[in-house]
Amino acid sequence: MRIDHIAIAVKELEPALENFKNVLNISHVDLEDVQTEKVKVAILKLEDTKIELLQPLDDSSPISKFLTEKGEGIHHLAITADNIEKDVERASSNGARILGGIRSGSYGRKITFIHPKSVNGVLMEICQAPPES
Amino acid sequence: MRIDHIAIAVKELEPALENFKNVLNISHVDLEDVQTEKVKVAILKLEDTKIELLQPLDDSSPISKFLTEKGEGIHHLAITADNIEKDVERASSNGARILGGIRSGSYGRKITFIHPKSVNGVLMEICQAPPES
Repeated sequence: MRIDHIAIAVKELEPALENFKNVLNISHVDLEDVQTEKVKVAILKLEDTKIELLQPLDDSSPISKFLTEKGEGIHHLAITADNIEKDVERASSNGARILGGIRSGSYGRKITFIHPKSVNGVLMEICQAPPES
Repeated sequence: MRIDHIAIAVKELEPALENFKNVLNISHVDLEDVQTEKVKVAILKLEDTKIELLQPLDDSSPISKFLTEKGEGIHHLAITADNIEKDVERASSNGARILGGIRSGSYGRKITFIHPKSVNGVLMEICQAPPES
């Protein structure tokens, strides 16, 4: 398993992107809307992983709720699974609480989430590893 | 730049370690006390990075304060710098607020922190990349 990305909730994408560029050497930025999660995403590529800045598209977005309750900051940690069905089944059988079923996330990849109560306050996304390129 | 580790504040190391093992395929765990930050650390090795679980050694630890104020969860995100002095100077000249000087962290590596206000609520550690092995 590897870290796929670290997702950070922000109010406004453009100034946040400037802040991260001030501090990090970022080789490439992609922008994407993920309608299923109602977020606008800036994907900042580092050497081995990605930082995703998430801005809510509207007040019904889960990110909007997070910003109201906790303010800007790390929203979740995403881990790649070589076989998402198998890894999620193992986590579930060990008592971890899976949030919703396996569904389609950014780049059309299979994803799901594990409840923060199961892993010490960390909202964890499990996402299928992309095919080898 | 790469993600060096993701640090998670926990109340008790042993049960937290069990939770993470339930969910992740972890190849190796190291335990270490870092007296300068007053924490007991479990370092969980994933394929390309590490998750560090931080338990305060006493009430004077910054992690103890964090747990009281925010509860368990992600405490900071650590990024490797190829040249920490140069990367920190660049961040600083771009207006990022550096917390304390460059000092010695776990494994005796040079580290420093960037204030969450400078990067949208994320406490960021910058640490010198380990020498090529």
